[in-house]
Amino acid sequence: MGQEEIRRRNVGTLLRHVHLGGSVSRTALSERMSLNRSTIMALIAELTAAGLVREELPPGTGRAGRPSLVVRPEASRVYVLAFDVAVDRLVAARVALGGGIVDRREAVRPRAGADLERVVEVLARLGRGLHRAAPRDAICVGVGASYCGMIRPGDGMVRFGPDMGWVDQAFGAELGRRLEIGLPVRVGNEAHLGALAEQQRGAGVGLRNLIYLHGDVGVGGGIIVGGKLLDGESGYGCELGHMVVNPYDGRPCGCGSHGCLEAEVGERALLDAAGRPAELFGRDAVRTVVDDADRGDPAAQAALEHVGDWLGIGVANLCNLFNPGMVIFGGTLREMYPGAAAQVRARIAANVLPVARERVRLRVSALGDDATLVGAAELGFSDLLADPLGVLARTAS
Amino acid sequence: MGQEEIRRRNVGTLLRHVHLGGSVSRTALSERMSLNRSTIMALIAELTAAGLVREELPPGTGRAGRPSLVVRPEASRVYVLAFDVAVDRLVAARVALGGGIVDRREAVRPRAGADLERVVEVLARLGRGLHRAAPRDAICVGVGASYCGMIRPGDGMVRFGPDMGWVDQAFGAELGRRLEIGLPVRVGNEAHLGALAEQQRGAGVGLRNLIYLHGDVGVGGGIIVGGKLLDGESGYGCELGHMVVNPYDGRPCGCGSHGCLEAEVGERALLDAAGRPAELFGRDAVRTVVDDADRGDPAAQAALEHVGDWLGIGVANLCNLFNPGMVIFGGTLREMYPGAAAQVRARIAANVLPVARERVRLRVSALGDDATLVGAAELGFSDLLADPLGVLARTAS
Repeated sequence: MGQEEIRRRNVGTLLRHVHLGGSVSRTALSERMSLNRSTIMALIAELTAAGLVREELPPGTGRAGRPSLVVRPEASRVYVLAFDVAVDRLVAARVALGGGIVDRREAVRPRAGADLERVVEVLARLGRGLHRAAPRDAICVGVGASYCGMIRPGDGMVRFGPDMGWVDQAFGAELGRRLEIGLPVRVGNEAHLGALAEQQRGAGVGLRNLIYLHGDVGVGGGIIVGGKLLDGESGYGCELGHMVVNPYDGRPCGCGSHGCLEAEVGERALLDAAGRPAELFGRDAVRTVVDDADRGDPAAQAALEHVGDWLGIGVANLCNLFNPGMVIFGGTLREMYPGAAAQVRARIAANVLPVARERVRLRVSALGDDATLVGAAELGFSDLLADPLGVLARTAS
Repeated sequence: MGQEEIRRRNVGTLLRHVHLGGSVSRTALSERMSLNRSTIMALIAELTAAGLVREELPPGTGRAGRPSLVVRPEASRVYVLAFDVAVDRLVAARVALGGGIVDRREAVRPRAGADLERVVEVLARLGRGLHRAAPRDAICVGVGASYCGMIRPGDGMVRFGPDMGWVDQAFGAELGRRLEIGLPVRVGNEAHLGALAEQQRGAGVGLRNLIYLHGDVGVGGGIIVGGKLLDGESGYGCELGHMVVNPYDGRPCGCGSHGCLEAEVGERALLDAAGRPAELFGRDAVRTVVDDADRGDPAAQAALEHVGDWLGIGVANLCNLFNPGMVIFGGTLREMYPGAAAQVRARIAANVLPVARERVRLRVSALGDDATLVGAAELGFSDLLADPLGVLARTAS
C-alpha cells in the first residue's frame, strides 16, 4: 500500500470516528487510530479545510484548566439523502454528517399497482423536495436507499421484491435518474441495513457478531460476522426468514415453500393465531394484538406465545450457527418480542449448546422504525467515508 | 504498519504460496503478491538461506530456451506433527512443508474409559515415535490437532466433547506436555479444520464462501464466510448439527434436544432407517448401508433417501443463510451423499430463494478421511507461515 493510499484511508477513518462519535477529542482519536498527535492534527487540518469537521471547545467548558478541543462533524454543511422503501410506506430524509435526521417526508405505499415507475416517482419527488429545502451552502455527498427485497450488490437492481412481486427491476438506477442530482443511489436490503445501523448507532455498538431480525409482512435478516455484513457468494445471504423450521406441518410461505420462519412468525401468522379477520394487516394490526396482550387478553397472549415458540426455534438455530454476541429484534418483531421473550429464552436454553449461548444478549432495536432509514443514510455516507477529499472534489465539480 | 512488519508478512505470504502451491515460478509469485521481481528475489533469498525453500529447474526442462526457475518447499527438512482425534480412531502424522503426509500412525480409539489421560498418552506415544523417525536434520516447526468437539480458541481446551462426555478438559496443554518437544499444540474442531483443509487443498480451493458438513456419530460444520472461518463471539459458531429441523416429531439428540439435524441425518438415524440392529455402529456400518443401496437393496436405498430429505432441509436452510459457493460433504456424509443427492437437490430447488442458489455447487470432500488431519497439519503450520524466520529462530534455539 502506497503513502497516498494510507493517507486517504486515515482521512476516511478519522472522519468515520467523528461521524459516528459525534464529538471526539484529539487524544481519543490518537488512541483509537494508533497514530501520533501530530499526524492526527494534520488529518484534522485537512478535513477542516475541506469543511467536513470543525474543532471547538466541548460544551460546558470555559472554566479552570485548558480544556482539550473536540472535533465535530460539519453537520449543517454536509448531508446525504436517505430513502426507505418498506412494505407499507415510503420515507425520505435528509441526514446530516454525524447522523442526525434533519428533515423527513413520508408517503403511504400503495398496496396495489405499485410498479417501479410509480414508486420511484413518489420517492424522487420527496427527495427533490428535501434537496431544495437544504441550506444553499450545504452539499449532498451521497444517496442511500433501503429496499424490502433482495438487492444485487453494486447496481441497486431489485432481484426479487416479494411484496410487490418485483423481479429484476432497476430500482437504484431509475431513482438516480429521476432524482436529477448527479449522484448514484446505493441500495441495500432493509434488514442488512438495519443490522449495520444497529451496530453503528443502535443496540449493538461495538459488537463484531450480531444478528438483526426485521419483521414486517415477512422476516428479513442482517447478520454481522467478524464485524462485516455476511453477504455470501453473490450478496444474497442472511435470508433467515426462509429457514425452514416446520417442514411437515408448516404454514405456506410467500416464497412458494412452507414452514419457513417468516411463515410461522410473520405478521399473518400472528394475526391468524390471534383470530383476527383476514382483511386486517400491517403494523397497526400487529400493534393491536400486542396492546391487547398487554391488557390481559388471553387470545392475544396465546398468539404471541405461539409465535414466540417458533421465533425461539429460529433464534436458537441462529445461535448455534453464528455464536452471536447479540440478537436484535426490529420492525414489527420489536413490538412482538416482549410478549414472546419467555418462549425465545426457553428455546435457547433447550436447543443451543451451552458454550454457544454463554455470551448472547437479546435486545429490541434501539433505532426502532428508523433502523432501516439510518442504515440507508450510512450507505449514502459510505463513499464519503472511504475517500472524503476525493468525493468532495467530485461533488463540488 | 512498519517496514519490519510488512517484510515479515511478505516473507510469510510467499512461503504460504509455495507451501500451498507446491512449485511456483518467480513470475507467478510476483503477480500473486503484486510485488516487483527484485523484491520477490530478495524474499526468496531469505527463505532459501533459512532452509525453507529452494529454487530449481521445473521437471522436464533442460532443452531449448532458458526455463524459469521454480520455488519449492524444503519438504524433507521442515515438518509438523498433526493429530486427529476422531470418534473412532486416533491418527498421528508427520506432514512436510508443502503438505505431504510423509509418515502416519493410527490407533483405535477405545469407546469406553477414554479419559483425557488415556487419549493423550496414546497420541503422545504415536507423536514421539514419528518425531524420532524423522531425519536427523529435519526440524519440527509446529503441532496441530483436530478434535471432535468444541474447542476454546487459544489454549486447546475441550469445552465439550459429546462422544466421551468431556467437559473442560485441557487437551491441548496436556498433549503439549506429554509430547516433550517444547512446542505448543494448536487445537481446532474437526469440522472447522476440515472446512479449512478443503478450502486450502481440497474441493473448495479459491472459494471465499463454503460450507463443510462432517458426518460421524453426529454432524459437525465448518463455515467459511468471506474467506475466513466463522468463529462467532467466542469461537463456538458453525454448530449446524444442532440446527433444529424437526421440532415436533424429531429424534432425540445427544445434546439433550431433539429434531436436530444431526439426530435426523447422523449415523444412528441412517442405521435405524435401514433397520440395522442397534449394536451396529461406526463408519463400517454406514458403509455397509451405502454398499447395499448401491447393490439395489430397497431398504438401504429408502434409508438414504429418508435421511437425504432431512439433509436437504438442513442444506437448504444453510444456503438461504450463507449464500455459499459450495457445500462439501465430508466424513461419513461423503459416502452417504451420492445416494441422497436427489433429495438434497429437490429441497434446494423447493426451499432456497432462486438468487441464493444460482451459484452453489454440491461436492463431496476431495480429501476424504484425511480432511481433518490435513486441517490439523495446516493449523500446525500456521505459526510458521505467520512469521517464518521468527519461528525458525525460536525452534532452532
